[in-house]
Amino acid sequence: MASKYPRSLRGCLPLWTLLLQAALIVIFFFFASYDSFIQYPEVVTQGAILQDMVVMAALGLGFLSSSLWRYSWSSVAFNLFMLALGVQWAVLLDGFLEHPRLGKVFIELSRIQQATMTAMSVLISAGAILGKANLAQLVLLVLMEVTAFSATRMISQQFLSADAHVSMMHIHVFAAYFGLTVAWCLSRPLPREAEEKDQRKTSPSLFAMLGTLFLWMFWPSFNSALLHIPDKKKNGVFNTYYALAVSAVTAISLSALAHPQGKISMTHIHNAVLAGGVAVGAPCHLIPSPWLAMVLGLLAGLISIGGAKSMPVCFNRVLGIHDTCGVHYTFGLPGLLGGITYIAYLTSWFKDPLIAFQMLYDIAALSLSLAMGLASGLLTGVILNLKIWKAPHVVKYFDDQAFWEFPHLAVGF
Amino acid sequence: MASKYPRSLRGCLPLWTLLLQAALIVIFFFFASYDSFIQYPEVVTQGAILQDMVVMAALGLGFLSSSLWRYSWSSVAFNLFMLALGVQWAVLLDGFLEHPRLGKVFIELSRIQQATMTAMSVLISAGAILGKANLAQLVLLVLMEVTAFSATRMISQQFLSADAHVSMMHIHVFAAYFGLTVAWCLSRPLPREAEEKDQRKTSPSLFAMLGTLFLWMFWPSFNSALLHIPDKKKNGVFNTYYALAVSAVTAISLSALAHPQGKISMTHIHNAVLAGGVAVGAPCHLIPSPWLAMVLGLLAGLISIGGAKSMPVCFNRVLGIHDTCGVHYTFGLPGLLGGITYIAYLTSWFKDPLIAFQMLYDIAALSLSLAMGLASGLLTGVILNLKIWKAPHVVKYFDDQAFWEFPHLAVGF
Amino acid sequence: MASKYPRSLRGCLPLWTLLLQAALIVIFFFFASYDSFIQYPEVVTQGAILQDMVVMAALGLGFLSSSLWRYSWSSVAFNLFMLALGVQWAVLLDGFLEHPRLGKVFIELSRIQQATMTAMSVLISAGAILGKANLAQLVLLVLMEVTAFSATRMISQQFLSADAHVSMMHIHVFAAYFGLTVAWCLSRPLPREAEEKDQRKTSPSLFAMLGTLFLWMFWPSFNSALLHIPDKKKNGVFNTYYALAVSAVTAISLSALAHPQGKISMTHIHNAVLAGGVAVGAPCHLIPSPWLAMVLGLLAGLISIGGAKSMPVCFNRVLGIHDTCGVHYTFGLPGLLGGITYIAYLTSWFKDPLIAFQMLYDIAALSLSLAMGLASGLLTGVILNLKIWKAPHVVKYFDDQAFWEFPHLAVGF
Repeated sequence: MASKYPRSLRGCLPLWTLLLQAALIVIFFFFASYDSFIQYPEVVTQGAILQDMVVMAALGLGFLSSSLWRYSWSSVAFNLFMLALGVQWAVLLDGFLEHPRLGKVFIELSRIQQATMTAMSVLISAGAILGKANLAQLVLLVLMEVTAFSATRMISQQFLSADAHVSMMHIHVFAAYFGLTVAWCLSRPLPREAEEKDQRKTSPSLFAMLGTLFLWMFWPSFNSALLHIPDKKKNGVFNTYYALAVSAVTAISLSALAHPQGKISMTHIHNAVLAGGVAVGAPCHLIPSPWLAMVLGLLAGLISIGGAKSMPVCFNRVLGIHDTCGVHYTFGLPGLLGGITYIAYLTSWFKDPLIAFQMLYDIAALSLSLAMGLASGLLTGVILNLKIWKAPHVVKYFDDQAFWEFPHLAVGF
Repeated sequence: MASKYPRSLRGCLPLWTLLLQAALIVIFFFFASYDSFIQYPEVVTQGAILQDMVVMAALGLGFLSSSLWRYSWSSVAFNLFMLALGVQWAVLLDGFLEHPRLGKVFIELSRIQQATMTAMSVLISAGAILGKANLAQLVLLVLMEVTAFSATRMISQQFLSADAHVSMMHIHVFAAYFGLTVAWCLSRPLPREAEEKDQRKTSPSLFAMLGTLFLWMFWPSFNSALLHIPDKKKNGVFNTYYALAVSAVTAISLSALAHPQGKISMTHIHNAVLAGGVAVGAPCHLIPSPWLAMVLGLLAGLISIGGAKSMPVCFNRVLGIHDTCGVHYTFGLPGLLGGITYIAYLTSWFKDPLIAFQMLYDIAALSLSLAMGLASGLLTGVILNLKIWKAPHVVKYFDDQAFWEFPHLAVGF
Repeated sequence: MASKYPRSLRGCLPLWTLLLQAALIVIFFFFASYDSFIQYPEVVTQGAILQDMVVMAALGLGFLSSSLWRYSWSSVAFNLFMLALGVQWAVLLDGFLEHPRLGKVFIELSRIQQATMTAMSVLISAGAILGKANLAQLVLLVLMEVTAFSATRMISQQFLSADAHVSMMHIHVFAAYFGLTVAWCLSRPLPREAEEKDQRKTSPSLFAMLGTLFLWMFWPSFNSALLHIPDKKKNGVFNTYYALAVSAVTAISLSALAHPQGKISMTHIHNAVLAGGVAVGAPCHLIPSPWLAMVLGLLAGLISIGGAKSMPVCFNRVLGIHDTCGVHYTFGLPGLLGGITYIAYLTSWFKDPLIAFQMLYDIAALSLSLAMGLASGLLTGVILNLKIWKAPHVVKYFDDQAFWEFPHLAVGF
């Protein structure tokens, strides 16, 4: 059993990825070049926003899912791997989809910034299938999901008149349902040992807290990254800040309230503290006063804790989906709440006959994200289930030792 | 004993905090709205400073106090909770105190920035009472301390002609003595088991080091956040940078010198490395050459290490105060040094007959911070000692298990 | 044996360093003053770059080397100590070397920024001798290496017409070979116990991953810090970003490929993931399209993993050098690759008869860094080997307990 797995890795994965990397370099050679014009203040301020996005992706999302007892190395390192690969692919794809007739991709700061955000969709989805896929499967996941999400955004922008900000903010809905569908395809009954590994330890949980905090602190930067009018950018920052503050208070209080002995669950905190930032994403530039953002943060915390209490039972038992890091109630449900709020908000805002069209468009954009997430997730899940990937055996689930060389096993954890 | 505590939590705390959160939303609904005008470069640069403050508060101060053996989850998560609550309250309060007749609070970037800094006073104080209070008590602490500190700043600015920067820099003195007085009220003789829990482990200590480093790295940003003239801002950054560098070298050397076998104490490092930044806070924009900041850093390191060696004995034995994280010698004493330096500096700077008045004002502002810290801390401590809070029993002090749900106790730490 | 060592520490080190710190203050008193003119946007943007450099130095390099089993406290704290000392010395030295006749050092933001980068040379070198030197020896290391590197940069700039950027980017080559030579001088056959301590644990390895990630995320800022033309700065950021992405993918794939069972080595990841950023350093502002940076990242990852697989054997056995943190293949070899690429690049770029001169100059600048690293490393190593330093005995190598006070040894790690 153990002997079967390594052979697949040795033979197929590393050469596969190295060849893929070489192929990407060749594509960049033929089709990509740098944009040549930039002004001074822009290179510094836009560079700072890009850096914030990279911190959220590499550190925040990497450590957010690092609390599994015996899988923390893989969580962090595979997250970096997927980010590095996803960004390269997303830059190419976005460029081609935006100007398909140009035959050439011009790379500018804003494109790398958006590519980093696009690649974050993979990192969010990966939370649902963490510990159940090998590197070769993750490579395919990266390519499929970045393609599907870029296509979704392009359709939203070109046919449904969504702007760059809103189409990006549907990332949470898309990524959560993509990940859940893939997890559904990969789900197998877990043996007793694998269930034990799906546990938390203090020290890795503090690492997860570190990831959570970095996401919490930098989320205003994420939500306002694609807003370019100063006033809207400011509103985006403020509303995200307030929604996050309220969802932090709500999450900790509700987690205690939901436990029969008033004890707080660390897993709830990791998830629900961020729900406010997710929910306020789409409408953050439109909300004109803090109390609305705060109500949204309260609702998001409520939904997220409610989901964390009831989902695992219903999902695990009824549908057989095992959602390792709670992607559904961290990103999926609050993201839906945000999308619906955005649509409701537009409705009340414009008292215009044209609004019916705009509202239909916005509903279509949100539904598209959801549908594309489910459909492309199903396709990816079916492909990942093929025998050729030599997926890890179910007893190796959630186990760093299947992937990592430990100097001495005795001191290995 | 264990059964008594959870009931209090279940019944009182979470509903209490949720209702409080709802009340805050209602107050924001009636009284707060966003400021509508902002220029482009400002939204980016001020946003970056705000982000630095949030990193220092959520991550730096959160992890700084995470080195207790069995209390690291609570340290980090309760810190986030207090920050999220404190910021909301501080924004409202600052707005009302600044323009009491307006009946309305206009929220702008600089106000959120100052509210974050105000909320840091709670996080500093919490270091002295960490592990001895439950969440309901911490909620009260947040409300009382933010109110007291905002009032202190308002009085300093309106009646003692202190500027925003100096009145904020007295935060260390205020918060340290507030925390110590509360700790004095809550102090009870620790049983043997609780004393054992007041220990450090390698891994949590590295987390505390992480918190220390983030504070160390971002301190120049804290000290210069409220300085708006470029030249003063630059001086603030430079002097803080030098004072921190010298206090790091001093702390490590002195800690070895103070130990009979030349061994360094990690606890000293966590505290004394930051003393330079605290001490240079108030006068940082006036100091015209680096050597003065360096001398201040040296003195602050000296005082801080000296305090760490002699204080616990005298405080614990004589006064019966148990200062969990060494707030007194990390923030209190270096803050006093900084305040006195600022006064001394002004004296030598202006050779003017008017100086006598200004000096009296400055002495009054520093004394006010100290007195308000002691008085409001005493009041808070007395209230926190009431039976209605159902404070944790002394055998539950410093224990994560009183507050957190552990999946399996066997792998719980 | 144990009794001998502490006496040396107690008697010599802390007083030594405190006196040195006092001497530095006196020198600053006589010779240093702040530059008095600064414009508004500059103080914010340049301040942000300085902060990025400090994060890389204190946090990134500090935690990068924290994965040793029983030496993580020392790695992080001594790193901070060396940084704080090195920056002070580098500011003075750079100022004097730049305007030797002025007799006065004017401190401006860009000078502190360069001093922080110069001090990073010490932190890189320290990776090779970590766990084998006491604090007194590290103090000497700081003074010697900062002096040697500042002198190297000054010669490069004044006699070999290198610019500030390129002469700084040779830091990796200089620091790696300096560190290796010192490690060669300090190398002694390790007893069995010391070898066991040279191991990794999960939790410290996650800290090392944190350090790696911070370096990975902020590297674009490092490589573009000394580039002041917007277009070049942008190219620097872009190329570094791409090289890092490719070297991350390459490192993880190759590490699996190189292991007989397809398992990835965490140590490889810590080192090789950063190789792309090192290699692209010198030529990053000249490379006009992403694929070149990507090829460089691929080659750097290849060299770094190759080195990690073959170097320890050849170095440990043949030359007797023990390179604790793999400085040679993380910084040394990729740095050489970058230097050679820069020279090759210039050659193909200018089709000018004058190019021969420029190329000779550039070859000379790279060779100078290498030669100065080796020569000053040898000198430092010989001095550090003197009996007066009372170096830790070889059985105390890699052991936190020689330096740190543990509250209770039983819970000490």
